[in-house]
Amino acid sequence: MSAEKAETTQNGERGAFVRDTRYLDARITADGRDGWPVEPGRYRLVVSRACPWASRAVIVRRLLGLEPALSMAVAGPTHDERSWTFDLDPGGVDPVLGIERLAEAYEKAEPGYDRGVTVPAMVDIPSGAVVTNDYPRITVDLETEWTAYHRDGAPDLYPEAHREEIEEVGELVYRDVNNGVYQAGFATGQSAYEAAYQRLFARLDWLGERLADRRYLVGDTITEADVRLFTTLVRFDAVYHGHFKCNRAKLTELPVLWAYARDLFQTPGFGDTVDFAHIKRHYYVVHSSINPTGIVPAGPDLTGWLTPHGREALGGRPFGDGTPPGPTAPGEAVPAEHWVR
Amino acid sequence: MSAEKAETTQNGERGAFVRDTRYLDARITADGRDGWPVEPGRYRLVVSRACPWASRAVIVRRLLGLEPALSMAVAGPTHDERSWTFDLDPGGVDPVLGIERLAEAYEKAEPGYDRGVTVPAMVDIPSGAVVTNDYPRITVDLETEWTAYHRDGAPDLYPEAHREEIEEVGELVYRDVNNGVYQAGFATGQSAYEAAYQRLFARLDWLGERLADRRYLVGDTITEADVRLFTTLVRFDAVYHGHFKCNRAKLTELPVLWAYARDLFQTPGFGDTVDFAHIKRHYYVVHSSINPTGIVPAGPDLTGWLTPHGREALGGRPFGDGTPPGPTAPGEAVPAEHWVR
Repeated sequence: MSAEKAETTQNGERGAFVRDTRYLDARITADGRDGWPVEPGRYRLVVSRACPWASRAVIVRRLLGLEPALSMAVAGPTHDERSWTFDLDPGGVDPVLGIERLAEAYEKAEPGYDRGVTVPAMVDIPSGAVVTNDYPRITVDLETEWTAYHRDGAPDLYPEAHREEIEEVGELVYRDVNNGVYQAGFATGQSAYEAAYQRLFARLDWLGERLADRRYLVGDTITEADVRLFTTLVRFDAVYHGHFKCNRAKLTELPVLWAYARDLFQTPGFGDTVDFAHIKRHYYVVHSSINPTGIVPAGPDLTGWLTPHGREALGGRPFGDGTPPGPTAPGEAVPAEHWVR
Repeated sequence: MSAEKAETTQNGERGAFVRDTRYLDARITADGRDGWPVEPGRYRLVVSRACPWASRAVIVRRLLGLEPALSMAVAGPTHDERSWTFDLDPGGVDPVLGIERLAEAYEKAEPGYDRGVTVPAMVDIPSGAVVTNDYPRITVDLETEWTAYHRDGAPDLYPEAHREEIEEVGELVYRDVNNGVYQAGFATGQSAYEAAYQRLFARLDWLGERLADRRYLVGDTITEADVRLFTTLVRFDAVYHGHFKCNRAKLTELPVLWAYARDLFQTPGFGDTVDFAHIKRHYYVVHSSINPTGIVPAGPDLTGWLTPHGREALGGRPFGDGTPPGPTAPGEAVPAEHWVR
């Protein structure tokens, strides 16, 4: 997503941030009922490693081993008001889609498109048009509609027996945590900020209690619910704590959640997709309304992410009856030096 | 001081912050050689509880029991580009000086005065003119020239045997810590910021080593050196960590310095002069160039300041041959509710 595109509007609460959730919502399904059948090599997943919403899809694609079936374009971490670009690619052009700006694929989907040019976006390669940017649907459809192309040993991230609970927990996590940090950070009024801050930390306390004696959020395996929470937690100290003023405590000061986040981080498919350099540059450079100097903090010290977490003692079966993913696909590794900044 | 007044200029390093240190530098001395003799009831110390430089004088005045001899005016935490005001007082007027803005006392000292309107300032009550705003001189002169009016049992904060070491340590602490946090926070260029950040944390590491086995910075008693370091440390997590991007670690994550700071905080004359509400409001509201929304963070949780520090085990004699100060003077207590925000 490009947070810029979400608008701050009146909402009963003065200065509250309201996310624009009007997505392109066609679905890519096994039966192709929306006109977009699952088909290997046909679609391109456009992401930014800076973005927590896109990072969900990056993680899920890798956990499920969808790399051979679904290619991925990584946008650069910073951009102007015209949103995401492919400035990391040679010539600034995505080699598959042949475009410089993601906005061009939105324009192809809907001429005159004037809503958010966001990631993740699933793009139909033949037409060059965005099919969907409906991020919660994208990951669930990768989990349930793309099963024919899952790797051997892919985990079931959206098990039928737990879907209701995953969505119940996910809704609370979305409202208070995933989107809550943005509501704190983009508030333009003190009371709107404080309301978001209180909701956020109350929910983190609740999550800490829930996770004190269970390894994962729902059931005893990694699910979509963990992916959704992880992408916010991994950004917490690097950006939300300072930049978004979510500063009652750092994640490192919340023992249960910090151990839970490290456990996931050290699980193949999670930490190996995280680019702290992109994350920090994106938020601190792009959000000029809250960081006019564009200075990117040198901290925090991130080495703690690799320290022992002790969560194995809680049991759980990370990949259920499946197996961990193998090494990162060729060309998709996060540069080692993006760790330090 | 009013940080706004210091200018960001070229300094070899692009975007580096350079503090304006052109002070009114007459001295109030026991022998009155500059025309300003120490005299009880004659001067008024103007401070802001938000300001680390002024807070040095607040602490020293209280430790030495100078309240009956030297009255104190407390400016409000926020102000516009015309600098500090007496908006906390009835009618917005200081009851002794009869002025609304501290700038008026600077104008009386020097018509057309165009440098920083800063705190602390020592004002001659009869003429209403600022005598000096030379903050390092102000505290040392309170310690060495005002001795006739020190309370019984006042500590020697500037002992002759240790003055050289106090100034040596003080110079490093000033350059890398007291002023270093401002150089990080007000930098407008990435490399100037990073240079300040590196110097700051290298110096904090050095201080942590120095204080690991000694209770105070110089000698075995509280001195001017501790006062100078304390006023920066007490603001670290509340403002410098996030607002000034001094975020390698919070003070609470630096075990030796955190214990040292709590030890002082819990010593009469230190923590009881600290107004976290004023501190946070000042920095986050006044510095619109780095926090345009003016939102004041609700965190961090400050209750840790009152937890046991264990530093008594290192020995030391906090007040040397003297005694702790008694209760805060009438009318000078920090409101209890200013703790929480």
